[in-house]
Formats: sequence, structure tokens, C-alpha cells
Amino acid sequence: MTKTLNVGMVGYGFMARAHSNAWSKVSHFFDTGYRPVLKAVAARNTQKATAFAEQWGYEAVESDWRRLIERADIDAIDICTPNDSHAEIAIAAAKAGKMVLCEKPLARTEAEGKPMVEAVEAAGVPNMVWYNYRRVPAVMLVKRMIDQGLLGHIYHYRAKFLQDWTISPDVPQGGAATWRLDVESAGSGVTGDLLAHCLDTAIWLNGGIDSLTAMTETFVKQRKDATTGAMRDVGIDDAAAVMTRFANGSLGTFESTRYARGHKAAYTLEINGENGSLAWDLHDLNRVAWFDHRTPGALRGWTSILVTDGEHPYLGKWWVPGLIIGYEHSFVHQVADFLEGLSNGKPAAPTFRDALETTRICDAIIASGRSGQWVDLADGATA
Amino acid sequence: MTKTLNVGMVGYGFMARAHSNAWSKVSHFFDTGYRPVLKAVAARNTQKATAFAEQWGYEAVESDWRRLIERADIDAIDICTPNDSHAEIAIAAAKAGKMVLCEKPLARTEAEGKPMVEAVEAAGVPNMVWYNYRRVPAVMLVKRMIDQGLLGHIYHYRAKFLQDWTISPDVPQGGAATWRLDVESAGSGVTGDLLAHCLDTAIWLNGGIDSLTAMTETFVKQRKDATTGAMRDVGIDDAAAVMTRFANGSLGTFESTRYARGHKAAYTLEINGENGSLAWDLHDLNRVAWFDHRTPGALRGWTSILVTDGEHPYLGKWWVPGLIIGYEHSFVHQVADFLEGLSNGKPAAPTFRDALETTRICDAIIASGRSGQWVDLADGATA
Amino acid sequence: MTKTLNVGMVGYGFMARAHSNAWSKVSHFFDTGYRPVLKAVAARNTQKATAFAEQWGYEAVESDWRRLIERADIDAIDICTPNDSHAEIAIAAAKAGKMVLCEKPLARTEAEGKPMVEAVEAAGVPNMVWYNYRRVPAVMLVKRMIDQGLLGHIYHYRAKFLQDWTISPDVPQGGAATWRLDVESAGSGVTGDLLAHCLDTAIWLNGGIDSLTAMTETFVKQRKDATTGAMRDVGIDDAAAVMTRFANGSLGTFESTRYARGHKAAYTLEINGENGSLAWDLHDLNRVAWFDHRTPGALRGWTSILVTDGEHPYLGKWWVPGLIIGYEHSFVHQVADFLEGLSNGKPAAPTFRDALETTRICDAIIASGRSGQWVDLADGATA
Amino acid sequence: MTKTLNVGMVGYGFMARAHSNAWSKVSHFFDTGYRPVLKAVAARNTQKATAFAEQWGYEAVESDWRRLIERADIDAIDICTPNDSHAEIAIAAAKAGKMVLCEKPLARTEAEGKPMVEAVEAAGVPNMVWYNYRRVPAVMLVKRMIDQGLLGHIYHYRAKFLQDWTISPDVPQGGAATWRLDVESAGSGVTGDLLAHCLDTAIWLNGGIDSLTAMTETFVKQRKDATTGAMRDVGIDDAAAVMTRFANGSLGTFESTRYARGHKAAYTLEINGENGSLAWDLHDLNRVAWFDHRTPGALRGWTSILVTDGEHPYLGKWWVPGLIIGYEHSFVHQVADFLEGLSNGKPAAPTFRDALETTRICDAIIASGRSGQWVDLADGATA
Repeated sequence: MTKTLNVGMVGYGFMARAHSNAWSKVSHFFDTGYRPVLKAVAARNTQKATAFAEQWGYEAVESDWRRLIERADIDAIDICTPNDSHAEIAIAAAKAGKMVLCEKPLARTEAEGKPMVEAVEAAGVPNMVWYNYRRVPAVMLVKRMIDQGLLGHIYHYRAKFLQDWTISPDVPQGGAATWRLDVESAGSGVTGDLLAHCLDTAIWLNGGIDSLTAMTETFVKQRKDATTGAMRDVGIDDAAAVMTRFANGSLGTFESTRYARGHKAAYTLEINGENGSLAWDLHDLNRVAWFDHRTPGALRGWTSILVTDGEHPYLGKWWVPGLIIGYEHSFVHQVADFLEGLSNGKPAAPTFRDALETTRICDAIIASGRSGQWVDLADGATA
Repeated sequence: MTKTLNVGMVGYGFMARAHSNAWSKVSHFFDTGYRPVLKAVAARNTQKATAFAEQWGYEAVESDWRRLIERADIDAIDICTPNDSHAEIAIAAAKAGKMVLCEKPLARTEAEGKPMVEAVEAAGVPNMVWYNYRRVPAVMLVKRMIDQGLLGHIYHYRAKFLQDWTISPDVPQGGAATWRLDVESAGSGVTGDLLAHCLDTAIWLNGGIDSLTAMTETFVKQRKDATTGAMRDVGIDDAAAVMTRFANGSLGTFESTRYARGHKAAYTLEINGENGSLAWDLHDLNRVAWFDHRTPGALRGWTSILVTDGEHPYLGKWWVPGLIIGYEHSFVHQVADFLEGLSNGKPAAPTFRDALETTRICDAIIASGRSGQWVDLADGATA
Repeated sequence: MTKTLNVGMVGYGFMARAHSNAWSKVSHFFDTGYRPVLKAVAARNTQKATAFAEQWGYEAVESDWRRLIERADIDAIDICTPNDSHAEIAIAAAKAGKMVLCEKPLARTEAEGKPMVEAVEAAGVPNMVWYNYRRVPAVMLVKRMIDQGLLGHIYHYRAKFLQDWTISPDVPQGGAATWRLDVESAGSGVTGDLLAHCLDTAIWLNGGIDSLTAMTETFVKQRKDATTGAMRDVGIDDAAAVMTRFANGSLGTFESTRYARGHKAAYTLEINGENGSLAWDLHDLNRVAWFDHRTPGALRGWTSILVTDGEHPYLGKWWVPGLIIGYEHSFVHQVADFLEGLSNGKPAAPTFRDALETTRICDAIIASGRSGQWVDLADGATA
Repeated sequence: MTKTLNVGMVGYGFMARAHSNAWSKVSHFFDTGYRPVLKAVAARNTQKATAFAEQWGYEAVESDWRRLIERADIDAIDICTPNDSHAEIAIAAAKAGKMVLCEKPLARTEAEGKPMVEAVEAAGVPNMVWYNYRRVPAVMLVKRMIDQGLLGHIYHYRAKFLQDWTISPDVPQGGAATWRLDVESAGSGVTGDLLAHCLDTAIWLNGGIDSLTAMTETFVKQRKDATTGAMRDVGIDDAAAVMTRFANGSLGTFESTRYARGHKAAYTLEINGENGSLAWDLHDLNRVAWFDHRTPGALRGWTSILVTDGEHPYLGKWWVPGLIIGYEHSFVHQVADFLEGLSNGKPAAPTFRDALETTRICDAIIASGRSGQWVDLADGATA
């Protein structure tokens, strides 16, 4: 017996498109017990919100997210606004008893995110943060292989997320298209935008981070404000590199930048264990690279697993072996798992609480980038 | 002013899923002037058709495709049945004045396909065959680059489509899941199923084929009938290799098989011109490999173009650079182009007539595989 | 107790360099029981021969290969001249009781090669043809894996050798640098020069070829004679494609050309068996691609074996894991195996007799390219 | 007029083989004005030294390197012993007026290396350290491309050198085969052995390093002594990660380990500039990856340059396009450049002085690994 889940979307930008596509598609491919209905979209710019609603089939438009939350016919609020509004919306939604799904990062800082966690937990509402890359089938396969113990003791974890879209000093900051360059809206630069993805995956795959030291840099010191046209100091980190020690004794290296010419969305990760290694690359997201040391010596090598078979995570729901899926499918899987979690009572990760830890680590990176000192995270609280 | 296009689907199998997804998604991403509505699905097995209709949101189910065609509220018939029923359905639909979209290959033979072409042309209805790989953005980019003259005089064209799913002699023939192994339903084996894709792309990219010689083989001589359980002779070609001479003087080599262990849907193509070469691989469908001989000598090499930028074909409608799309998107693009063609009066290729040529070449391959002789195709008629 | 082997070289061109390097290096890395000494080099152009001798440390120069053969202090004659002189030199050397090593192909035609085989067999002298690619460690690993039965029943064999150096019509024919374009000197074009390598490897790895059909083409019909400067008809095949049936029931496809822009020495091969597949590429010659179907489903994929470990063929003699070797090492291995064969009485392949079979197949390709007919090779004699 | 250069080798291990091969081959391929003669090898173990001399054609054996240095007929001393003996031998050789070539790293510490630099400079003798990877043709091509200004302003430099051969705790420390694990002999672990290569290339390609912070780890705390059999604390760094700031404002990240399962000699580097990026991988050492942002948008991508053409660095001396070379050739090139430097009076880099800077940076890495603090290198002296 399939139930209806009425979704209220806040925002109409890039992430709202990715989420709307996921809500629209999930029932065509996954049988979760719930069928999402795109009920209403909220945004101050009602003209754009209306166009968005028509394109995606939302039944209604609200000019204020508060009104969306007030509606009794909405079950879940999906927050796709810039980072600086996550907290207020999420807390209000939770208080109204709505399920809350929030685009990552949870908040600009741990301090801002903590009340969000408290709010959803106090309300007892299902909650999730859209760290979608966990749901790339290849990444899920990596998780399964690690959980099966195929790697043995872990020595190294490394991840990078490289882009090149802000090299030109003519790219502005602020505004609808470039709020990610404005520290007020975004909280941080590559750390919250890109490293946060790497960190979410890392602690999921390899456990907690005990300590870290970071190097951050702002290459372009001033940029035009997209709204006012005035030059303003840039407050975000353009690039960040991090060295970490994981609780399991392994060493981590992380790097993110928007100044790596030739890389568009080059999220790569690798993990080295005594019995094998695994690697993945977002640009070729249907593949896992796997080195199995147990193979007889002369036949050992890196195996490129094309993750398109029915026995691979999620793939039994899609096409046939050899036919690849893309970026958008990670969101469909996240929705599917969220709905599945509603059905079986096992909430899908990462919850707000899970995501708060990632934001805590991001805070430590920004702090260490300034101080040049190692930051101890093992005690559960940043310095 | 967006118009509605009411779609009637015949069949509920794998291709019907791929097409339904395309019809469902197209309006979320492309503004073509038409919004498809999934009106009804027809199939003899009404239980399965009903489940399919519910999953995809078809408004109604018909137990006979003839009734679907009779419905006045249907604009377009989409044929997703085994090859042996294409002709009858398509001709009836055309006579009823419906637009007709037919899964490839057009028909089992040229003889069977010719009346289909005549029917749609006599009725003057829009018609298209689902050779979807033309609409993979990377393949479309290859087309544009050739049309821009980047390759110069062409010397070689080669394509392969390799799979491995029928190596086990326990795979049956016939029935809903394995009708592709039954010569009655399918018309041929890898030739009509896989080589047909390669040939459609080849003549689109490189022009007509003047002559060919082929080698075909049936490795497993008898298979169980999926319906009756009885062993029956296998009538299809399990593998086929072809050498061709194109009208432009270039040489072609083609190969297809379902016995290439390790290859799932390995459609690869390469074209060599005097000034450059281009290659593509379905397993990594977002990439084009490009060798530009005009580059200064010491810097020359094969460039892997990641086809995810806004200036690449179709990509401006999807996500942002670096974020890949998959197999299913080729169908969305084909629908978008079909609808666009309705709007602007320029019919999207390949039409039934275009696809008939591919079937004519398939006939020649099967004939040459038997005779061992070269077949002359230049005069427009197979021997 | 290491013995001395006095080598007499005929020629001073590209292949003479590759062979001289091999003779010079072999004792530094392999302990075969023999130490080659570069005794003398013979060539009509004594000025160039003298410079060559100085560069490589040959003790003497002869202006006529006949004199080289007459010398009592020469144990082995190494023939590195254009194809049209192989037969005369080899037969004379054999009659003089010398070991004979001949650059490939053995001869321009089977008819020309047969007396060569008879001569070395009548004289009972060790003999070998330099199909060096068998001795690339990765190719030898492929051989071992096939011999271990890892592939099971074989369905497909495919090989290509692609180059692009003769696309310009300004490349002349004949002369020291471009005799490979002159049919008189070379016997054929890509067939004897490139396909011969593919065929030698193929019949070694996959057994005899029963029948074939070929397509050949000469793209540039006339080229200047490098010696006379006059335009002359081109007699060689610029490109050749071949389809074969092997004695083991598998299908073969072969292609070679010097008009594939972007490919320099792109010899690639692949073999598909029921339990696995293997592939290799000369441009990355230290790697074998291996698909093992016995691996659990979710972990299957193509493994890139980096052939640099001590347990890989020949590699224990070189550096340490991860440090690659190159083209020239295949010749060192061939010399090592030849010398080893002298020590243990097991002649290293391919012998003249082995290589005659490759030339027989080349003849059939040229013949089929003209006739368009399948050629039956199973009875041991070309039509 | 070619001169003779008499070489005296100290040591007979792995590096002595690599160097001897280079001295033996160089005259066959390069015309430098000098022809090396392998005059004598020195080692305490005269039995092994004698076998080595026979294999490589050294004319004599000395049981003490001091005697080698005393010989008037030796022009150049090549030091291939463990790191702890570099200083004493090099200083003595310089004082005796010999040219000195020293295997890398120059010394265990900057303090140990400084007198070496002073000695060769006081004596005015040609001197060089074997950082051979500079002479890989692809790396030299990277250098040329940077020098031509193809990258523009540099933002990022990253390099890794990953191995996996010491994961087993059963690998001992000390002794002839495993002295690299003994801190007394080696000075440090991966820092001096592997990172030193990365650093040498980095400062050559991207200029000086102003500051750094490092994380080091010893995973296996105790290992058996290869000589005594007793368990001993391990004093080396098993893994090291480093973040740096270059003088040109770019950020550097470096990592090295012997615990990265599946990596044998995975030295990789990448440099990102505003107009392009370059990358290289020792496992595929004949290739450069090059992203050219000046290419028209739709055709941009990473180009894999196969560095085998005559116009590529050093390649005109080897084979023909497409035919690769390997690890050993980097040593041949280094010898060729050294000899060329003798002829034209421009000493080949890196000299002892150049290499001292690398050792200074290594010291800083070890120090920072202990202190967790950033180390300032810009003033020319470590803290």
C-alpha cells in the first residue's frame, strides 16, 4: 500500500532542480512504499518560482517559506537555499513537525548547526542532509567492500575535490549565481562546498578524524559584488589542503580548490589497506578501481569495476549491464533510501547529527588554516 | 504556448521503460513547445501492463494495440514490442493517422520494412526510429566535428559492439526475456540488435556503404525454447564481422558479438581522417577521444574531452561541468529532438526511410555471412 | 663456463641498431652460457658501416655480406637488410654452416621463403626470425595465462597494427629510408610489415588459421621514387583488413594501416574466452588487461596488470616492481632465449619454419585482397 | 674527437647496476664527445664485486674505495653505496681531484651534505647527484612547456611517491637489501628515499619552497635487524605528507609512503596554472597529460602526449614514434647530459649544491613531522 509524501521545496536553483528530478523519478524505479508529490515551491521571487513550478509540476507556489511550513498538506520540507538560511528554515520546519531535508553543508558553522540538530531531534522528525555522493553506486560498493573487511588494516585515506571555475578574477561574489564566493552566504569557500563532501564520505568509510592541520589560501583577494557592483574583499578560502589522523591510526590527506585548471568536478578518493586498495573518481562515477592483494602475484593489478550490474548497489533498478547512470541518480537513490527509511523505521544517513560532525571538521580546517596549528578533534569539541 | 502530445505505448518491457522515462522527463529539461502525456499502454498481458501503467503514470491500459490505435485521444504510437510485430503495428498506426515511433531495428528485413516506410510516407505522419546512440552528446559532438571538417579526408571507420551475456548454453531462446535469441522474433542476432546501431551511426557520420563482406557464426547451435522447454536449433547469428567500402573511399570494419567475455555493452567507434581522429566508447559515454594533427608536434596526443560543458550538445540543459549523464539521457534527447521537429517542421532523424537503409545493410551482412561473397550495395538494392 | 658467440651483422639500419643493442646488453642481464661478441658488420656502403661499427664496437667491417659469411671466426649471421635480400643471404649463410637470424618477415613470399627453410634445415644450423613482440613480457604473460587454461574455450581473437606515417603523398618509395613502400624491396606493404607481427603472435597464442578473406587498399596510387625522383605506381597495400577462422573454431579480425591518424605503433590484441579475456597494447607495453570471469560478480572487471614484478616473465632480470622497460628489451629477450636455446638444445621460436607459415598467410591476404574470395589455408597450401 | 672517461664505481647493488648500464649504453646512442670506460669497481665484498665486474666488463676490482680514488687512471668516481657513506667517499674523491657522481640523496642531512658541496667546489671538480627522474623525456617535456610559459601563473603543485613493499612486519631493517629501513644507514625513510625525488623535481619545475608543515608516521614500530636478527626500534618514517608554500605563491602538497597497497613506484606529479595543467606518472613514464585551456571550449580536454617522437626530448636518439623506452633510459640521459656538460662547459644539474637544497627540505620535513609546526625555509636556513 503506497502512501503519498507531500513535498515542499524551498528554492528554485541548481540544487532544487536536482532534488525535484529525484522526487519526480524515484517512484518510476524504486518501490519504497511512498510516492512523493511535488506539492509546492517557496521563493521570494514568485515569477521564477512559478516558472519552476510549471516546469516540474509543483501544484502551488508560496512567496515565503514560512507559509510553506504552515501548510498542513506538506509532509516534508526540502531546503535548497544558500547556506546562511538553512538554520532558520530547518528549525522552523522541525518545530512545525515537518520532516526536514537540507542541502549540504548543514550550516555555515558548528555553532549554527547545533540548534538545527537539537530542533529535529526535539521534534522527532525524520531529517537528512543531501551528501548525495554516498549514494553513487560505486561509492556504496566501496562502502560494502570495506564493511566486508576486504581491505584489512587501513593505512591511508586521500581525497581531493578539484574545480577550475573561479580562476578568472572577473567572477563576482554574492548574488544568485555566485553566492558560493560570498563568505556571508556560504560560510566558507571550498571547505564547506567541496571538502565537506570529501569529509562526509571519509568519516562514513574510514571512521572519525582525531586531529588535523590545514593550509588555506585566497588567491583572488577582491571580487566585485554581484548585486552592488562594488569591489569587496573576498572572505572565502579558494583552496584548502588538510592532513589528518583518523581514529583508526590511518593518515588522511585532503585537498580542494577551484583553481585546478582542467578539473571540473574532480572528486577523487582512495583508501589503502593491508590487503587491498580502492579508488573512485566522480568524473567516471560508474567505476571503482580495486587492487586485490590476495590475487596470485603475477595476476595482480588494479581492476576497473564497471558498476552497472544488477548485483551492484541500486543498479538492479535501472538498465542492463554496461549502461551507465550519472550524477542525478545519486539524488534519486538518496530519496529512495529516505523513503525506505520511513517505511522500515531505519532513518537514512546522513542525519543532521551526522552532518554536524562534518561541519565541525570544516570549522577546524578554517581555524587551522589561520593558526597553522594542529587541531585536536578527538575529544568531541573543537578548540 | 506549450501543446500536449498524447502518447500511446505498445509494450512494457525494457525499451518501454527507457522510452517512458524519456517521455516523462523531457519537459523538465527541454522547452520544445510540446508536453508529452502518457495516455495509455497496450499489451496482451493486462496484469503486467497495469502494473507498468501505475509505475509510470499512464492513464489507461489497453489489452490490444489495435484499440490503442483506434483511440482518438492518442497522438503518437510508440512501438516497443519484439521486431516481428513492428510492421503490422506501424502500418496500422500510420493508416490511422498517428505519429509513429518505432524501436530499432525498423523491421526484421528490408522487405518487411519497405511497406512501413510507404505507410508513414503515404499517411504523411511524423515518424522516427529509436537509434538512440546518435543522441549521446559525445556522439553528437563527433558529428559536429566531422561536419566542421576537422578530420579532412577519411581513411578508416571502425566500430564494434561487444557483449557477453549469451556465452552460457543455458540461456534459452524465445519468450519475453530472450526473444532476441529467437530468429523468428528478432529477424537476426547481433546483426539487427547490435550492428544495426553501429551501422546507423556509421552512415550518419561517414556516408553510404557501397559494398561489404561478412563473416557470421552461431557458436551455440541449439538452445532450449523459453516457452516450450524443448531444444531447438538456433537461427540467429551469435557473432558477425564485416568489412565495408564506403562511398567516400574509406574502409570500414565492424564487429559484433555476445561472446566477448568482459564486455557488457561495449559499443566503440573510431574514425581516422587525414587531419585528425575521433573515438568514442559507450561504457564511458561522456567522453570523446580526439587527436588533432594540427597541434604542434611535440604537444600532439589523444585528448579526452569530458562532454559535460554547457557548450556541448544538449549539456546546457542538464547540470554543470564535470557532472555526467548516462544511457537514459540519449532517449530524452531523442524525444526532445522529435518534439522540436514537430515544432519547427524539420523532422528528426532517423526517419523510417533512414532506418530502412540500415536494415538493408543488415540483410546484406546476413547474406554475405552465408555466401562468403562481397555484396554490392551501391546501386541501392541488395542482390 | 661461458662461451663466446661471434656475431656478423648484415646491414646498419634501424633494425641493425635494435639487434646490436640486444647483442650488447644481453650478458649484462641474462646468464645464458654464451657471451656475444660483435665481430663484424657488412654493408656495401662501407663509410656508413664503419661509423656504425665504431658506434657499436664491431671489430671489423666487410663491404660484402659474402665475405662476412666466408669468415671462419663468425658463428652467427644476423640479417637486417630489406626483405628482397633475405633469401640469398640466409641460404648462403646456412650453406656455410652459420647460425642464421633473420629480421622479419622471413621473405617476400612463401615461395621465396621455402628454400630458406630447406637450407637451414638441411644445414642443421640454429635459426630464428625476429618476431620480437612475442618477447615483450606482457605478451609472454598472455601466452602463459592461455597455456594455463585461464580462458577456457576461445571465441574471438582480434588484432590491429595502426600507424599514420605515410598519409602524406610526399613520402617517397624506395631508397634506404622508405624501401618499405616499394613493393619490390618489401614484397608487400602493411601486410608483411605490420600484420605479419599480428599473425605471428596470433598463431602462437591461438593456433592455426584455417581460412581468411581480406580487403586491401592503396590510398596513394603514385609516389616519387626516392632514388630516381620519378613518380611511380605504388605496388604495396597501404591498409589491410582480414577476417579469419581459426582451427579452434574462434573468429579472428585483423587490421593494419599506415593511415590511422594519431596512432604511431598501435599494435593491440585481444582474445576472448569463456572464462576470461586478455588484451595488450604496444604503446603501454608493460601492461596486460585481464578480465577474470571467475571473480565474484560484484568485483569483476578488467584488471590492468603492471608487468614489472620479479615473477613476471623476464622481469626478474631487470629492475624492481613498478619500473618499466621498453621496446628494445623485447630484442634482448629474444637474444637471451636464442642463446639459452643453444645451451639447452631447445631451439627458440619462431624458427624459419614457424615464420614461413606467417608468410604463407600474408600471401593469402594479398591474394584475397585482389580476388575478394575466401582463401582456404587448412590444407597447408595456399590456393 | 672522442675522449675517454674512465669510471670508478663504488658499490655493486641495484643503483650500481642502473648506473653501469647507463655508462655502457650512452655511446651507442649519444654523441657527447666522451666515451666512458668501466675501469674499476670497489667494494669490501670482493667476491661479489668480481662477479659484478665480470658481468659489466669492469677491468678491475678494488677492495677499498680509497684505493679506487688513489688510482691515477680513474677520471670519475660514481658513488652507489648506502647514504651514510656518501660524504666520506665524495669528499675524499673531490680532494683527489676526481669528478664525483653521487647517488641521491646527497647525504642523510644538510649538515652532512654541506662539507660535500664545499669539497667539490673547493676542488673545482664536475659533480652531479643522480636525481634521474628529471631526465625522463616526459618530465623534461614538462620542464620545457613550463619554461615556454604555457601554464601562466601557477596555483598548485602536487606530487606523490607511493609504494607498498614494507607493509609486512617481516621485512627486516639493515643489511645489504634493506638498509633503506635502517635510519642509521638511510638517514630517513620515505622522505630521503622517495620524497627527495619529488622535491628535486618540484623545485626544478616550480621554484623554491618558502615554508612547509609535515605529518610523518612509522606504522611498524619494530623490525628485525637483517644482520643480527634482533628486534630493533624502527627509526625511519614509513609515510610522510607535506603541505608547502612555494616562493611563487602556489600551494604544494606532497605525500610518500611504502604502505599504499597496489602502488609499486607510483611517482606522480601535477601542476596547475591559469592557462593549463600538466601531469605525469612514472608507471606510464612515456606519457604527459596536458590540459590546454586555450583550446576552443567544446574541444578542451586532457591530452595524453605519447612522448616517443623525434622532436621530444632525447627521443631522436632512440627508436621511432610509438616505441617506448623505460626507467633505465633516464640514467642514460643523465650520463649523456653529464658528458655533454664536460664538453661544453655547462655543468649538468643537479649539482651537489642543487641537491643540498633538497636535503635541507627533507630535514625540515622530518623536523616538522616531530614538532607539528610550520618550518620557514625562505631565509635559506632551517630552524
